[in-house]
Amino acid sequence: MPAPRRSGRRPGASGTREAILTAARRQFAAQGYDRTSMRGVAAEAGVDQALVAHFFGGKQRLFVEVVRLPFEPSEVLPLLLEGDRDTVGERLARFVASILESPEGRARVLGVVRAAASEPEAARMLREFLRGELWAPLAQQLGIEDAELRVTLAGSQIVGMVMARHVIEVEPLVALSGDELAALLAPTFQRYLVGELGHS
Amino acid sequence: MPAPRRSGRRPGASGTREAILTAARRQFAAQGYDRTSMRGVAAEAGVDQALVAHFFGGKQRLFVEVVRLPFEPSEVLPLLLEGDRDTVGERLARFVASILESPEGRARVLGVVRAAASEPEAARMLREFLRGELWAPLAQQLGIEDAELRVTLAGSQIVGMVMARHVIEVEPLVALSGDELAALLAPTFQRYLVGELGHS
Repeated sequence: MPAPRRSGRRPGASGTREAILTAARRQFAAQGYDRTSMRGVAAEAGVDQALVAHFFGGKQRLFVEVVRLPFEPSEVLPLLLEGDRDTVGERLARFVASILESPEGRARVLGVVRAAASEPEAARMLREFLRGELWAPLAQQLGIEDAELRVTLAGSQIVGMVMARHVIEVEPLVALSGDELAALLAPTFQRYLVGELGHS
Repeated sequence: MPAPRRSGRRPGASGTREAILTAARRQFAAQGYDRTSMRGVAAEAGVDQALVAHFFGGKQRLFVEVVRLPFEPSEVLPLLLEGDRDTVGERLARFVASILESPEGRARVLGVVRAAASEPEAARMLREFLRGELWAPLAQQLGIEDAELRVTLAGSQIVGMVMARHVIEVEPLVALSGDELAALLAPTFQRYLVGELGHS
């Protein structure tokens, strides 16, 4: 979370920040990610657009704050793009396990998954956000065939593990340590991301 | 299942019951568990709300009756236990794809997954049902180490594919044919069910 100044220098900054988040939450839900703009959020919050940028930088950051995603695409992209391709599955698996090990990370993942499952608007804005900010740039930089399919297959295993382990609370999965979970998922991610898919 | 009287005392009871089930099935699949109401189901079925309560008691009972899993454990157990172990992943993948290819099967899966995500009671019912009727007997008959863990890992990929492809509606996954989907999932299931897990 960025640290808005809470000193006397900008009285009401906290209230302003909340007003921006409230407006953004409403607009993302009503219009989806693609059609929501910084300008529109600023207008609804009754503040200058520069102030939205001051607090949140850009639309991606604003979305992450509103939806309480447990990560930013800017964290995941280097993880998948940099380093040895033979261990990309392991790196992703450790990242996922580390988020699920943290109570805050787990709570955020659960909130997002539950919202997506029960509210079509939430599913839509999540889809638009992930596609625009994660899969598409990744596919472009990964330079591998079926890159979007690969990333979304890995995503399907991630959301499924969240559902099974933390929503349905399936016993043998709940009892796994973070290291065990990472070791179990790594080969799945490795094949999905850079291995032989064999689907055609 | 409760036994509504099928005697001559209430002619048409069977048809009414079916009408309620049909309306409830559609509403659970379309709206999830939370947002479906006895009143809404009664309205769609064209009956009084008291009649829904007469047949099914409450919404939870209605859910148990209606959002049946799209398969019975008695279908899946032989699929996993009989035949060549080298192709067990492929058999499961084809079974999953065939269910998701059928509109009825897909609607049922969606209802179950949405309910599990939004309603702890539903998650618990599902977990208890699957554990008692599927994982535990399977683990016993499969005679392989970590059998419950193996089956639930496969389950996590199944529920995740349902979420990604049919709830969040991720584009490259939505566009897959049933055959492509089966080919992509088969190696994942194969490793989870009988392959090297490498988690300890």
